[in-house]
Amino acid sequence: MRVVKVSLGSRSYKISIGAKLLADAGKECARLRLGARCAIISDSNVAPRYEAVVRQSLKRAGFDSVTIILPAGEKAKSLKSVAHCYDHLARHRLERKSFIVALGGGVVGDLAGYVAATYLRGVEFVQAPTTLLAQVDSSVGGKVGINLKAGKNLVGAFHQPRLVLSDLDCLRSLPPREYRAGLAEIIKYGIIYDARLFGQLERHLPELLERDPETLASIVARCCEIKADIVAQDEKETGVRAILNFGHTIGHALEAISGYGKFLHGEAIAIGQVLEARLSIALLGLPSDDAVRITELFRRAGLPIAIRLTAAQIEKLHAAMRLDKKVAAGEIKFVLVDKIGRAVSGQTAPAAVVRGLFSQKPSHKYLQRRQ
Amino acid sequence: MRVVKVSLGSRSYKISIGAKLLADAGKECARLRLGARCAIISDSNVAPRYEAVVRQSLKRAGFDSVTIILPAGEKAKSLKSVAHCYDHLARHRLERKSFIVALGGGVVGDLAGYVAATYLRGVEFVQAPTTLLAQVDSSVGGKVGINLKAGKNLVGAFHQPRLVLSDLDCLRSLPPREYRAGLAEIIKYGIIYDARLFGQLERHLPELLERDPETLASIVARCCEIKADIVAQDEKETGVRAILNFGHTIGHALEAISGYGKFLHGEAIAIGQVLEARLSIALLGLPSDDAVRITELFRRAGLPIAIRLTAAQIEKLHAAMRLDKKVAAGEIKFVLVDKIGRAVSGQTAPAAVVRGLFSQKPSHKYLQRRQ
Repeated sequence: MRVVKVSLGSRSYKISIGAKLLADAGKECARLRLGARCAIISDSNVAPRYEAVVRQSLKRAGFDSVTIILPAGEKAKSLKSVAHCYDHLARHRLERKSFIVALGGGVVGDLAGYVAATYLRGVEFVQAPTTLLAQVDSSVGGKVGINLKAGKNLVGAFHQPRLVLSDLDCLRSLPPREYRAGLAEIIKYGIIYDARLFGQLERHLPELLERDPETLASIVARCCEIKADIVAQDEKETGVRAILNFGHTIGHALEAISGYGKFLHGEAIAIGQVLEARLSIALLGLPSDDAVRITELFRRAGLPIAIRLTAAQIEKLHAAMRLDKKVAAGEIKFVLVDKIGRAVSGQTAPAAVVRGLFSQKPSHKYLQRRQ
Repeated sequence: MRVVKVSLGSRSYKISIGAKLLADAGKECARLRLGARCAIISDSNVAPRYEAVVRQSLKRAGFDSVTIILPAGEKAKSLKSVAHCYDHLARHRLERKSFIVALGGGVVGDLAGYVAATYLRGVEFVQAPTTLLAQVDSSVGGKVGINLKAGKNLVGAFHQPRLVLSDLDCLRSLPPREYRAGLAEIIKYGIIYDARLFGQLERHLPELLERDPETLASIVARCCEIKADIVAQDEKETGVRAILNFGHTIGHALEAISGYGKFLHGEAIAIGQVLEARLSIALLGLPSDDAVRITELFRRAGLPIAIRLTAAQIEKLHAAMRLDKKVAAGEIKFVLVDKIGRAVSGQTAPAAVVRGLFSQKPSHKYLQRRQ
């Protein structure tokens, strides 16, 4: 088992990464000296596989748990689901010292974390991420939230978990499309922060695609280290943390205009990163060789790297980007890279250049997401 | 104008108390270096009187505001209202640097504050309390939240305002019942923290009931000082701040079982304080003379001091108290007083004693709330 620490003073916590961790969830929670009652929040895909293991582990450790199961998918990340959870928690008399276990992917973690942040003005929570994307990104750093029709993650809070349990065994059964979506966030860490990691990914992508346990353990841990490092510097995203949004200005808008169903988050930000890399050539002098390497790595990972939109869709996308949380004084802000391994946030781009990304004939043959 | 400072490091802010403050709201906001866009959140009672003054003041100071008006009353403090506000804010493209002005009583302040705490993971907000209760209590200290059917304030956050503007002119037009409800929180400060204030209230209640401006200014400022002092010691209520809940364990449960319509919050906690003072005699040795002084002051203030419930209502009340945020390991916790001016939190009481408070024949002739 590998352990990565997130250093945030009294809110510090550890990320455990390894095999068979869910079966020890109860023992791990017992170490945190939490109250006796808890709720497991999961979804209809994940619960049939892992909920019983976690529930029994909590029971063995003396916890009295209730389980709330939400429909799988991004659409569940809504105020309606939040209200459903609140009602359950109240009915089962969860108290201030009670806690929530988020068992699932990014949607479950974000939603359950938001419920934990706001129920009784905040109860503790434990992240048990079961997807690659959640293990390397969304379960770490305390950003929790839900979507509005108007845009993704427009409502939320900063609420750090007390523990993250990343059980690598969960990744074995992950559908290929979900697994590849997680690779999009992994590649992002290389692009924005760690040129060495980017090189490793280029070399070891085949092992990673085969889900080789050793490769996975080392890559997941490295990604968590990078995220922990960035979050420790800037918990509330007033500075450096913003670079984690590389690819997300376009990515979130794509998700919003397609109704949160068409693209997985990882797919949307794969397209977003390729296009924002192209912006980086024009606006920040990113060498075009670097942009080619970036595009090529997403392509090899089986992720979508381009999209063609109609003029009307481009306008919708632009409107959605103007609702991005990074907008300031009406201006859309991008994270751009000046070389692989280094990103700069708060960059503006002329509207015509941004629109051009979607209407120009893509130069690449891998236009469509491949299942 | 009197100014009270709430000292919370980088989240410190001032409370301005005086006449004609709403007309200067724009100028005051401009000093805070907030973004250009803002939303005024108010209700259908308050908006017709004060919204135009605030909007015009903001406009003169260069702010671009949008106004959201909610139905008046405690029932508006719901997830549904929150969703309504989010949609408005998104439609009007409020950004991270934008801010919210909460213009109204405790319901508006709590709700607008909660919206500010969660929209885009938190935007700034300014409290412009227009009721006595909001000026002396709910606008100060950063507790924001909404009700669930299961109980009051069960969902919320800690989110400090950047400024509190308490315009005493608003109190002139306050309906008598609302005004008296505010006195319940004022009397509470005397009971839990300041025997001298309690004595002043006993002596100067007539002037206070007549809304004498000088008396009001000095009493409102003193209450804010006490609250600021307590909040500065314990922002997140892990210790001393809990004493502010004197009267609230019973009071909140009364509000919950009566469907948030029958009692104003101040009325419910007046009954709660009288009954919790009676518990204090039995459990903490509060001199019965002190309990008589407490009861008598609420009575003179025109507040309800007793309630008779049926056996079924008592059971409902007990269940509602078990959902109180202060419950720990299933036990209901009370704040009790051992003498006027000193409170102790975290006290348990035998269930039979609590039930007895509601079934015994009230010894007092002022049973009913008097309009």
